[in-house]
Amino acid sequence: MTERIRESFSLAELAERFGGTVIGNGATRIRQVAPLETAGPNELSFLTNRKYHKLLSTTRAGAVLLPEGSANATQLPRIVCKNPYASYARIASLINPEDRPAPGIHPEAFVDATASVAASAAIGAFAVIESGVEVGEFAVIGPNSFVGREARIGAHTRLHASVTIYHDCVIGDDVEVGASTTIDRGALDDTVIEEGVKLDNQIQIGHNCHIGAHTAVAGCTGIAGSTRIGKYCMLGGNAMISGHLTIADRVVVSGGTVVAKSITEPGTYTAVFPMQPHAQWLKNAALVRHLDELMRRVRDLENEVKRLGRG
Amino acid sequence: MTERIRESFSLAELAERFGGTVIGNGATRIRQVAPLETAGPNELSFLTNRKYHKLLSTTRAGAVLLPEGSANATQLPRIVCKNPYASYARIASLINPEDRPAPGIHPEAFVDATASVAASAAIGAFAVIESGVEVGEFAVIGPNSFVGREARIGAHTRLHASVTIYHDCVIGDDVEVGASTTIDRGALDDTVIEEGVKLDNQIQIGHNCHIGAHTAVAGCTGIAGSTRIGKYCMLGGNAMISGHLTIADRVVVSGGTVVAKSITEPGTYTAVFPMQPHAQWLKNAALVRHLDELMRRVRDLENEVKRLGRG
Amino acid sequence: MTERIRESFSLAELAERFGGTVIGNGATRIRQVAPLETAGPNELSFLTNRKYHKLLSTTRAGAVLLPEGSANATQLPRIVCKNPYASYARIASLINPEDRPAPGIHPEAFVDATASVAASAAIGAFAVIESGVEVGEFAVIGPNSFVGREARIGAHTRLHASVTIYHDCVIGDDVEVGASTTIDRGALDDTVIEEGVKLDNQIQIGHNCHIGAHTAVAGCTGIAGSTRIGKYCMLGGNAMISGHLTIADRVVVSGGTVVAKSITEPGTYTAVFPMQPHAQWLKNAALVRHLDELMRRVRDLENEVKRLGRG
Repeated sequence: MTERIRESFSLAELAERFGGTVIGNGATRIRQVAPLETAGPNELSFLTNRKYHKLLSTTRAGAVLLPEGSANATQLPRIVCKNPYASYARIASLINPEDRPAPGIHPEAFVDATASVAASAAIGAFAVIESGVEVGEFAVIGPNSFVGREARIGAHTRLHASVTIYHDCVIGDDVEVGASTTIDRGALDDTVIEEGVKLDNQIQIGHNCHIGAHTAVAGCTGIAGSTRIGKYCMLGGNAMISGHLTIADRVVVSGGTVVAKSITEPGTYTAVFPMQPHAQWLKNAALVRHLDELMRRVRDLENEVKRLGRG
Repeated sequence: MTERIRESFSLAELAERFGGTVIGNGATRIRQVAPLETAGPNELSFLTNRKYHKLLSTTRAGAVLLPEGSANATQLPRIVCKNPYASYARIASLINPEDRPAPGIHPEAFVDATASVAASAAIGAFAVIESGVEVGEFAVIGPNSFVGREARIGAHTRLHASVTIYHDCVIGDDVEVGASTTIDRGALDDTVIEEGVKLDNQIQIGHNCHIGAHTAVAGCTGIAGSTRIGKYCMLGGNAMISGHLTIADRVVVSGGTVVAKSITEPGTYTAVFPMQPHAQWLKNAALVRHLDELMRRVRDLENEVKRLGRG
Repeated sequence: MTERIRESFSLAELAERFGGTVIGNGATRIRQVAPLETAGPNELSFLTNRKYHKLLSTTRAGAVLLPEGSANATQLPRIVCKNPYASYARIASLINPEDRPAPGIHPEAFVDATASVAASAAIGAFAVIESGVEVGEFAVIGPNSFVGREARIGAHTRLHASVTIYHDCVIGDDVEVGASTTIDRGALDDTVIEEGVKLDNQIQIGHNCHIGAHTAVAGCTGIAGSTRIGKYCMLGGNAMISGHLTIADRVVVSGGTVVAKSITEPGTYTAVFPMQPHAQWLKNAALVRHLDELMRRVRDLENEVKRLGRG
């Protein structure tokens, strides 16, 4: 409805800012980013996976980001770079800067008189800030969010709507906390969220957890109490990390994975039953349930074959 | 505490409205529905599964809904129909119409001056409606819910309590969104929820998702960004659908299933490790972890047996 | 920031209150509990697992709780007991009593005129209490929480922030409901939560569920409609319990487990795919998907070996 004015950028400018080599007309103007299927002439799109090559022949995009192995997969103006998706995401942020509400405490918020809120911070409608809370410079506390007593919210940190931060939590600078996410109290030690952490919506962080800097957690994931997550980790959606574990730096946990023991080495870890049409799943699930029997039959066979070999 | 007056219906009327054949006294009055174990003489119950046949001999229900194969499993007045549970649910809705709050904006809600709210819509206490939002006719925005700028809420759509709709989402008519459910912003394209979609509580819908008309999603399920779900799908509870996928119309995903690739055909899909007592699970989980070894042993056996056969 | 005064206790007093045998100086003063790694001289720690024995040699804790098999694993003053973690948790609660807000209705709460709120109860900012609700003695309704019409909240029960209780739910005494947890309406029968139940954050309880006394549910778990959970159960995080099931008393469900059928015997039940580095998981997942083929090959081998044995 309201039209926000957007800057435009030349392809060459974008390559200079975010890396990569321009092939074709570097003066092509980019006003927006969009998927290959829907992009128009002033829009930049991207390709990550060879299986979408065919979309390149039909896209109306003005330019595309391509990985190094696919530099000649199209004649369109293009930036060839290491990680087209990462570049795409950064360009999307440049073109569509996140609106931050204006600083100040909404007249319908409730802020305890002993809380300390930076003048540059914004507190949304019906947010509750309890006693002794500190809210840092340029922080944003979303509408209907709750920050319990003595909690500390870092500078440039943003809580979206209906977030719950229990008392005594410590949250670093430039942290993002999605809607309806809950961070439990520091029961013995503090619950600590380090700088640059991105928490999506609907996440539960248990008491006394420690989330390392720049780690990203996808929606619906639960982390049970007293677990320590390293820096630069990525936890997939609807994963479940048990309590009292230690996860190393740069660990990637796939969506839906249950992590029941500590992980000491970086890498990607997965624990998901493979999906199948229900009838096939029923068969395989029954076989899994009786794997010990199958194993026994293989052992019997081995013994019998050994006996036959000798005979 | 307060007693709401309920209409009563004859068994014959219900069969006429919802289908099925009456056996026994069609004039039996039905004032309420209830499970077999607790139903009384003016109440209608239902049977879906043969293993509950024995409950029919002890129930105090005034009448029951039975599937076609069990038409004579009782002497009670009954409606014999294709899907007793579906009929039961529809009759339950008829007898217990969902209360809708009276139209109007609660004095404790916060509605931006530039938002457009239909006169027949209801906005609950401590709800926040941001700039440029449109709320359609007869829509209900629950207490403590948040609707971000420029989002569009369709006619007859209902958000329950503490729902978060990020900015720029588009939500069709007759949509239901359960408590604490979050729908992420339209980052590039819009996030679109089509007409008749039913979202249960605690669901996360990622940015740019598109949920087809009349799809139902059960509680705690997460759908990652840019995924497109077809029409008339049913997604079970605590499922996880990865990002950038396409799910066909009329797909059923079982509860707890992780969907990591697109589904092109209608049908039911499942990905759940079979549950067992913990000691047995431990054994089978260890065998799953070493399935490649088992496979190698079977291959060795095959070679050895071939050799023996030739010898 | 504010320093709350904490009582101190002698080791002997703690053993008398919570059970166990003191070895070493029973007069040791305990002011706080803490993990072995961070505990100081006036702090009590605990050991549950032999693999942490080595921490005993470096801890600065003033005393420790040990299991019976490890009574002599340290020379520190200690309490030897059946379940050190359970004792630890109880002592933590004694030393750190949960702050309860002062009784009364926050001036920013909205309470319907027909609701009945005990004078000793506390209603937080921006909480909504609908018509006909009853809130018992010493109950606490957290900020931004919603209690639908006719629901009954028991004495000493606490709802944390942004909890949603739909209409017609019945909640016993001394129940705890974590932030952003949702409890669905009683559609036909009531939804009942019995006394002493502890629900963590982000939990979804479906309509008509019945949760038995003293059951504990960890975060992000979903329980679908009309399921009946027994007393003293423990449901792990991010578990999913299907609808219309019955779970016996004293059942433990592991985190991430999908429960798709009723459980009639106490015990621990698990359904989790074992986690592995992604490359290994890929191999094993493919083998699981083709277990029927493996089974067929084993059967063929058995037949062939039988034939060879006869030949």
